[in-house]
Amino acid sequence: MKVAVVGASGYTGLELLRILLRHPEFEIAAVTSEQRAGKTVGEAFAALRGRLDLAFEANDPAAIAGRVELAFTALPHAASAATVSQLRASGCKVVDLSADFRLRSLATYEEWYGAHPAADLLAGAVYGLPELHRDALVGADLIAAPGCYPTSTLLPLAPLLRAGLVEPRGIHVDAKSGVSGAGRSLADGYLFAELDGNCHAYKPGFAHRHAPEIEQEASRVAGDEVRVTFVPHLLPTTRGIATSVYVRPRGGDLAAARAALHEAYDDEPFVRVLPEGETPSLQAVRGTNFCDVNVFEDAHNDTWILLATLDNLCKGASGQAVQCANLACGFPETTALLDTGAQP
Amino acid sequence: MKVAVVGASGYTGLELLRILLRHPEFEIAAVTSEQRAGKTVGEAFAALRGRLDLAFEANDPAAIAGRVELAFTALPHAASAATVSQLRASGCKVVDLSADFRLRSLATYEEWYGAHPAADLLAGAVYGLPELHRDALVGADLIAAPGCYPTSTLLPLAPLLRAGLVEPRGIHVDAKSGVSGAGRSLADGYLFAELDGNCHAYKPGFAHRHAPEIEQEASRVAGDEVRVTFVPHLLPTTRGIATSVYVRPRGGDLAAARAALHEAYDDEPFVRVLPEGETPSLQAVRGTNFCDVNVFEDAHNDTWILLATLDNLCKGASGQAVQCANLACGFPETTALLDTGAQP
Amino acid sequence: MKVAVVGASGYTGLELLRILLRHPEFEIAAVTSEQRAGKTVGEAFAALRGRLDLAFEANDPAAIAGRVELAFTALPHAASAATVSQLRASGCKVVDLSADFRLRSLATYEEWYGAHPAADLLAGAVYGLPELHRDALVGADLIAAPGCYPTSTLLPLAPLLRAGLVEPRGIHVDAKSGVSGAGRSLADGYLFAELDGNCHAYKPGFAHRHAPEIEQEASRVAGDEVRVTFVPHLLPTTRGIATSVYVRPRGGDLAAARAALHEAYDDEPFVRVLPEGETPSLQAVRGTNFCDVNVFEDAHNDTWILLATLDNLCKGASGQAVQCANLACGFPETTALLDTGAQP
Amino acid sequence: MKVAVVGASGYTGLELLRILLRHPEFEIAAVTSEQRAGKTVGEAFAALRGRLDLAFEANDPAAIAGRVELAFTALPHAASAATVSQLRASGCKVVDLSADFRLRSLATYEEWYGAHPAADLLAGAVYGLPELHRDALVGADLIAAPGCYPTSTLLPLAPLLRAGLVEPRGIHVDAKSGVSGAGRSLADGYLFAELDGNCHAYKPGFAHRHAPEIEQEASRVAGDEVRVTFVPHLLPTTRGIATSVYVRPRGGDLAAARAALHEAYDDEPFVRVLPEGETPSLQAVRGTNFCDVNVFEDAHNDTWILLATLDNLCKGASGQAVQCANLACGFPETTALLDTGAQP
Repeated sequence: MKVAVVGASGYTGLELLRILLRHPEFEIAAVTSEQRAGKTVGEAFAALRGRLDLAFEANDPAAIAGRVELAFTALPHAASAATVSQLRASGCKVVDLSADFRLRSLATYEEWYGAHPAADLLAGAVYGLPELHRDALVGADLIAAPGCYPTSTLLPLAPLLRAGLVEPRGIHVDAKSGVSGAGRSLADGYLFAELDGNCHAYKPGFAHRHAPEIEQEASRVAGDEVRVTFVPHLLPTTRGIATSVYVRPRGGDLAAARAALHEAYDDEPFVRVLPEGETPSLQAVRGTNFCDVNVFEDAHNDTWILLATLDNLCKGASGQAVQCANLACGFPETTALLDTGAQP
Repeated sequence: MKVAVVGASGYTGLELLRILLRHPEFEIAAVTSEQRAGKTVGEAFAALRGRLDLAFEANDPAAIAGRVELAFTALPHAASAATVSQLRASGCKVVDLSADFRLRSLATYEEWYGAHPAADLLAGAVYGLPELHRDALVGADLIAAPGCYPTSTLLPLAPLLRAGLVEPRGIHVDAKSGVSGAGRSLADGYLFAELDGNCHAYKPGFAHRHAPEIEQEASRVAGDEVRVTFVPHLLPTTRGIATSVYVRPRGGDLAAARAALHEAYDDEPFVRVLPEGETPSLQAVRGTNFCDVNVFEDAHNDTWILLATLDNLCKGASGQAVQCANLACGFPETTALLDTGAQP
Repeated sequence: MKVAVVGASGYTGLELLRILLRHPEFEIAAVTSEQRAGKTVGEAFAALRGRLDLAFEANDPAAIAGRVELAFTALPHAASAATVSQLRASGCKVVDLSADFRLRSLATYEEWYGAHPAADLLAGAVYGLPELHRDALVGADLIAAPGCYPTSTLLPLAPLLRAGLVEPRGIHVDAKSGVSGAGRSLADGYLFAELDGNCHAYKPGFAHRHAPEIEQEASRVAGDEVRVTFVPHLLPTTRGIATSVYVRPRGGDLAAARAALHEAYDDEPFVRVLPEGETPSLQAVRGTNFCDVNVFEDAHNDTWILLATLDNLCKGASGQAVQCANLACGFPETTALLDTGAQP
Repeated sequence: MKVAVVGASGYTGLELLRILLRHPEFEIAAVTSEQRAGKTVGEAFAALRGRLDLAFEANDPAAIAGRVELAFTALPHAASAATVSQLRASGCKVVDLSADFRLRSLATYEEWYGAHPAADLLAGAVYGLPELHRDALVGADLIAAPGCYPTSTLLPLAPLLRAGLVEPRGIHVDAKSGVSGAGRSLADGYLFAELDGNCHAYKPGFAHRHAPEIEQEASRVAGDEVRVTFVPHLLPTTRGIATSVYVRPRGGDLAAARAALHEAYDDEPFVRVLPEGETPSLQAVRGTNFCDVNVFEDAHNDTWILLATLDNLCKGASGQAVQCANLACGFPETTALLDTGAQP
């Protein structure tokens, strides 16, 4: 099946190419990049030299739609919706990695992102977290791949909310992310010399655009209004998110919490519930589509701590997008996604 | 004034040497290291070549006590108490960087560390956080320099607890530390290849030995029993701690929180309350004795977020020890401590 | 075909597991580790949890030989030869990643490594650099996978020596390596805090054990005695080698040098000759089996500069070992080896 | 003595501020930055908050000249010469950190940098390497602080050339530098995600602008035309240069080489000749004004290897500039420069 990667020269685009190159069912038929149009993929990115003899083209949704059955769109928000709209009009399946189709409420979208260029498509979009929405993803035509932070927060949290084991308010999410989450942005703060040995919070509180997305999905699962305080931090590393979630239990014990995680994930291919007492690490998931989770209790302060790690470019973006695409197209869900990342 | 550094070849010992070398009042008269005894400081540590012509000697408290007026002890717990006891018996002032004299309750010490070799000295030890205990530190003879995590937690938290602005229970402390906090420990987990690009929590909940120390000092300030859930994380960097503290306000607003911080620290030489909206970073405090703090609110989830950064080897250990020694000996408190760290 | 990985818990062992897990022809039937015997692979290494349900066993060559057709041995030198000897006696093919069978001259081996436990096997071993010895590797029974430094030196240098384009004496090899080349060695110098932001040469001159190996193979290709000064440096990173080789041309120009590289490698699957003027980078080869090479000239000082980068654990060790095993067993040479590493 | 830092918001400018803040004789009276004009130093750079209450001003040489006796200029080349010209015309002493006054030959300057805006000043400028030009620096009015690469190459090489111990041609300089040498340049290649775990050569051969500067000074010392092939590499770290120089001895032995280094540097405050066999490391000189050097021999290939490390922002730029300023103004040469950098 021929596919396109629209916006293929950012970090999520590159990660899509890496995964699709080992996918036996998808064939990369078009890659777009305004900045690198005309260059081959190998000329633009030395790592892919000799692996993909395809030239970047400018983004022309109409032209692309005719050549592929499915497109991954990895463009900035708003720009993405406009492209997605054209691709969908031409009958192309779309897995969108932007924020444009993640929020079900148009009002919430407009509050956080501004006007929406294709609001009519919102209702038909499926939130691309297979562990929560697998049924809807099978055969889906428009999939909104989640943000990296929501995935790492929702996977450990959802089973406990669903089982009613924790209070839905007063949740504190402390997330630490590698800098590739910011993409290839040219800004002082992303320079090597500024990040080497550095670490700091940014947009603390309820100010990051991933916060409403977390609450939307958490509330859906809880059947109640969930409130989270979300504080992202930048790590001096390139890939990976480590998220710590602080919740108040509703009376259960650690065994109940662990049982809920095991029930949710023992049959899942990409979520690993770690043995009691073992903390997830970034390194173990780097370059993979796995999310490692665990739960700890602090009885003396009436708190449970949920820990999760994943690779923000893979399970937090492009790997998850391919997982969704596998579901949408009827391929085995794990196709091209089981590889272990380089260790160490 | 002649001073000794007992246990001078660990990372806190080296940092003491670095600071003392620029101190106009203290003269380094003895340095001990079992492993490096006989070697000069410059032979053992290339960075200090040509800066200090002194040979490491084995630790013999009786011999050292006669040659110096003050000793910094940077030994493992229990080993430290035994040495401190002899140094004090000989009339030597001591600033101890181990955990041995930080906890006021012998029972708590024994629960977390085992038998105490010098419990009789506990009552006379002063907790070496000048911002909380300056008066007691002036002229003190035995000072227990705080752990790195407690300093970064207490400095932002204490003013709010003292003012009664936040709930004393249900506090969540999410701390991120550079690996030098573990000292020069030879363990798989501290190898470069294992930490590069890695990040993980360890001892989550109420399992780290710094947790009871935090509660002791926080409760003292609050006049109430404070409960914290403490989750330390290891960062892929060498120096620095970034701590995020999640608290529930008792009805005040952000202005009240900021006012409490400013009142506490506007006259303090080493605590900088950042402008509203600016998050502290590790890089800005690396190599310095500063602790940068700020407070943020998330009204929609009834939460305040306190952020603090410091250098775990400096304000979190050796810099603070010298700050205390300055107070104990009657020198200006900032002597040898105002230098700006290398940037970037 | 069932294979064993003997010494599977070091970094080259882990990399072998990663590659073999995606190999359609090899099945991992046994993994050994003295230290981790009894634990499953997933218990010992979090990254492999759920990927390989096999327990480490102690190294018992006789027992292993009966269960597999081929073994990869990743043990320290001398220990390796003893094991290889038993495996070979039982008819098992062996790809050995130690130094034990790389040097053709027993005298040279003894000079650099001491007594050889299986000198009788030396004559039958094939040096596992497919670009130089492909014919001999097809169907080979005992293969000595080269060291990481020799591979990165020989690949750019061999074509110029073979063509007689450069002087065989006075060659200067300046190599920079990530620390994983030292394996999981517990030594002060490999601690994160000691390597972070650090870089230094070690064993400069003709003191590193890879130096005679380089000269052996370079001389074989040149048909003349080659002399290299070899200076390895440690980089503050985990994976990868960047090697710069300084040679004196024998009168030719850059075009001749480039032609020699292209002739040697245009049909090679894993050596990429970069376009004129483009320097190889570690990042582009990290996690891959590629070696990127290029040549530059400094006419004003009568010098050519050869540059090469590769991943020391992959093309510099385990990837190359699998490439050799593919040749030895009659599988397509690139099987399981074409994957692109994570970028960035 | 009042001084100005012109171009104070780049990395060399910041390093100047750090050093000058602890200098007892120089008082920072003016700091300029086009981009940050109007902001205080502490607002622009969090590390300096509370340390320097001075606002950046736009660069107006005439206005500045009247307020200070000496100016450090840290501007891009050409821009610097124009400013220096005005400052000198007003009688201000100048230590210039750009390339504008390093090359004695106008033709060479024009070949590498283009037209020179103040060629008339070239003849009066002193090359600011105190170990080579101390006498001329005493009382100097215009000092050209050397580049970071030349300092790390010339310090180990000059004594051997002066003594006639090595061949002046066929010298190979392989240098590895932290990224801060590129300043705060916003380019893809300096992003954290692009440099983390990366290493590559750039401008190999005789293409980097520091190459003619090295040959100028080396030839002056040798009394003969020296030729070097210069290959700089970028390291995945922020600060520091490690340089390896390959030379051919003229018949002497290692003892002769060591004697030449010791004779040159035993009385120098900032060059440390390491004990035989010990290799210099970046970490030992990071944050300091030291340059560590050593020499090794490879008799079997007729080669000596000179190794040197320094901090590119300190001894390689701003520290050396202050060392020169101390000489120019009659202060003890080591004033404000003996501090040991943070270890680790």
